Amino acid sequence: MKSVIIDIGGCDYPQKMIAGAVNAAKAFPAYNIVVVGDEQTIKAAVGDKAPVNLVIEHASDVITNYDVPTRAIRQKPDSSLVKAIGLLNSSDDYIGMISGGSTGAVLTGATLLVGRIKGVLRPVLAPFMPTAVDGKLVCIADSGATVDPKPEYLAQYAVMAEKYVRALLGIEKPRIALLSNGTEDDKGDARTKAVHELLKQLPIDFAGNMEARDALTGDYDIIIADGFSGNVLLKAVEGTAKMVMGQVKKAMFSSFKSKIGALLMKKSLYSLKSKLDYHAYGGAAFLGVKKLVVKTHGSSNEISTKASVANIIKMHENHILEDIKAEMETERAAVSVAVPDGE
Amino acid sequence: MKSVIIDIGGCDYPQKMIAGAVNAAKAFPAYNIVVVGDEQTIKAAVGDKAPVNLVIEHASDVITNYDVPTRAIRQKPDSSLVKAIGLLNSSDDYIGMISGGSTGAVLTGATLLVGRIKGVLRPVLAPFMPTAVDGKLVCIADSGATVDPKPEYLAQYAVMAEKYVRALLGIEKPRIALLSNGTEDDKGDARTKAVHELLKQLPIDFAGNMEARDALTGDYDIIIADGFSGNVLLKAVEGTAKMVMGQVKKAMFSSFKSKIGALLMKKSLYSLKSKLDYHAYGGAAFLGVKKLVVKTHGSSNEISTKASVANIIKMHENHILEDIKAEMETERAAVSVAVPDGE
Repeated sequence: MKSVIIDIGGCDYPQKMIAGAVNAAKAFPAYNIVVVGDEQTIKAAVGDKAPVNLVIEHASDVITNYDVPTRAIRQKPDSSLVKAIGLLNSSDDYIGMISGGSTGAVLTGATLLVGRIKGVLRPVLAPFMPTAVDGKLVCIADSGATVDPKPEYLAQYAVMAEKYVRALLGIEKPRIALLSNGTEDDKGDARTKAVHELLKQLPIDFAGNMEARDALTGDYDIIIADGFSGNVLLKAVEGTAKMVMGQVKKAMFSSFKSKIGALLMKKSLYSLKSKLDYHAYGGAAFLGVKKLVVKTHGSSNEISTKASVANIIKMHENHILEDIKAEMETERAAVSVAVPDGE
Repeated sequence: MKSVIIDIGGCDYPQKMIAGAVNAAKAFPAYNIVVVGDEQTIKAAVGDKAPVNLVIEHASDVITNYDVPTRAIRQKPDSSLVKAIGLLNSSDDYIGMISGGSTGAVLTGATLLVGRIKGVLRPVLAPFMPTAVDGKLVCIADSGATVDPKPEYLAQYAVMAEKYVRALLGIEKPRIALLSNGTEDDKGDARTKAVHELLKQLPIDFAGNMEARDALTGDYDIIIADGFSGNVLLKAVEGTAKMVMGQVKKAMFSSFKSKIGALLMKKSLYSLKSKLDYHAYGGAAFLGVKKLVVKTHGSSNEISTKASVANIIKMHENHILEDIKAEMETERAAVSVAVPDGE
């Protein structure tokens, strides 16, 4: 039986992730859901009503945000993350894993212990954001895995993210834009200009440069960025959405009249809040490693955990890894990069 | 009589900027407000009721967003921008200028024709954003003037922005953070890490690295960034605020009940909208050149134009240029940069 692994170590609310695991087990009876973490915690959270396809794997240790990722991966073999990756590597039956732990540790662990697909220069961390267009999402690649990337890395991000969006959202030819400080072709720092030239050569639907203010218009399916500015984009969007919604809430309670108004608008605003809620879309895929790895938010809850499991199953069923593997052979030629194997 | 120059060439709504100039002339009777642009357009907009301290300077040409800045500055001597800069340079009575035209042209014109203050490596474009804390603003330096800056440039941005925020907001020791992809000291791309070390050595209130999600918390007065990611931050905030407010509006009209609610909340939401409106804070100062130059949004209206004039007058009265000039001598030593004069 194929299995999806959930590492609950290092996340903010293990109980919520476990609840998500239970929901996922019920929703996907054809798969095992393997929860890795402290056995007592998991058992206590699951109670008596564990679905038969929920499997518990005990891990006595945990990697935290205070650990140095490269060191922790080597020195904490009993951590839930290293155990989860060990399981993932042990058999093809384990199709993928989810972790809500330290981003640095998850990416380092996946890169070093799972390993990159042959030809992939750097894996890419690709989360989704909701847009102004109902039901439409936009993917950022990269949102922070590599902060000083070479232009060729970003060209590969485009190729991998295209397959990702196709597999997950069913968009055959996703519209891909390059994050820059202006829409003109010659805008950008030196790296962005070089990436622009590479993306023009690829057989993708390349929309050219875009500005951060248009990230959520719904005009683009994928935004290509270096990990540093992609991270700025993602977090600026999160922070601003939270700030504005907070201000709206404050405005709602600023007078007696507005309180009555707020009461009447409750349902509509609640549905907006869930629309803007990143939990609904699951975590960020870490594309370019040999297995499906999804990094969920540290504050993941039952909704995002279940959504991440659903995403892994969908990616698996749509053969995204095989697609990336096959493409990497041809794509390497297209972006004209001479890459020593195993670089 | 001291004068403030307003270049209306290349902006989206000249009429609105002219209305702002009229308001500014009325609000600051001790200053001349000199409007540079097409005489007919200005006269038609001003009508018969021009305040005596509103001066019209005709310019027959205009630099647009389609012009190449460096070329346009040289080849369009009759453009409103080049004429405005010419005036600004002609006498100390012209204390500063505002332009709503092409950002590239304004910054290029100011850098080449006004010239940098001795010791300044690169001028910095520093706009304000509203935060979650009522009445509190945060300044981004740089928001896009230089996309591939050396670390030393950013150290100087901090010094100049400190004086700017002090002069304009009266904050004696502004809290300064460095935009990065994590709060830990070792987070960031190579440049950010180098900047972090330089900022630690400066006699400023340095809060360390910050993430884009905390840009609007009100915890910081100044955010130091390279022009590329600073531009991403600014535009992501603008775009997301606009998107979320648009969604709130949509939610308000989604049902009969919510429409009634919206009616009751109208006043509160309107006051929120004006709070989030960047027009209220005036344009972005271009710090490090020999005169006060403020780049306002292309879509500047009467509010932002008047606010920009008010900012220039306040900066002038608080001697910000003299402050920066004096500091540049000592600051150069502090950041340990050997800079050939006039580099």
